[in-house]
Amino acid sequence: MSDALAKAPEPPYYAVIFTSLRTEGERGYGRMAERMVELAAQQPGFLGVESARNPGGLGITVSYWASEEAIAAWKANAEHQIAQETGKRTWYADYCVRVAKVEREYGSRSVY
Amino acid sequence: MSDALAKAPEPPYYAVIFTSLRTEGERGYGRMAERMVELAAQQPGFLGVESARNPGGLGITVSYWASEEAIAAWKANAEHQIAQETGKRTWYADYCVRVAKVEREYGSRSVY
Repeated sequence: MSDALAKAPEPPYYAVIFTSLRTEGERGYGRMAERMVELAAQQPGFLGVESARNPGGLGITVSYWASEEAIAAWKANAEHQIAQETGKRTWYADYCVRVAKVEREYGSRSVY
Repeated sequence: MSDALAKAPEPPYYAVIFTSLRTEGERGYGRMAERMVELAAQQPGFLGVESARNPGGLGITVSYWASEEAIAAWKANAEHQIAQETGKRTWYADYCVRVAKVEREYGSRSVY
């Protein structure tokens, strides 16, 4: 996982905010997480991803997408579905997924 | 900063996704970050906050708000404005703020 900020195009676009608390133990989590980023990046409508986790604590992954359809197609991806199921059963003690429409943005790179 | 997941009400509501890369050195950052969470929680329309940072790397803070007006009032808060200015000058090598409308959510606590 890169530590760079995502560079999405001008809003509007969509964000999927995935927050989670891990269970104890690695159990293949790191390899899956890397593979999911690799796989998501190949999906139509993928715009970028940012991910951070407090050591031993809360994790936040935000992926950016061109449309709701792109998000639905990624959710339905076969390999991703296996990861989602394994996540519910094995990797996550608690999680929440929020789908949001990015309406505006600004930052250190913008003219704001 | 708590490691719990935020419990917002039913969508729609708003998310402010703040991603950042820190500069070197502490320079009062931790104390300011704690104070901003304390202060934000007192603002009208505040629904919750989640924050994570990779050791030495990318940080993501997502705060949740009842309305665009609540976000604007928080951005204009005098103490928060000082923190924003100090952030630009001192704490952040790079940052991005995205304002997004949460349209739906699901997770381990929902009936989904």
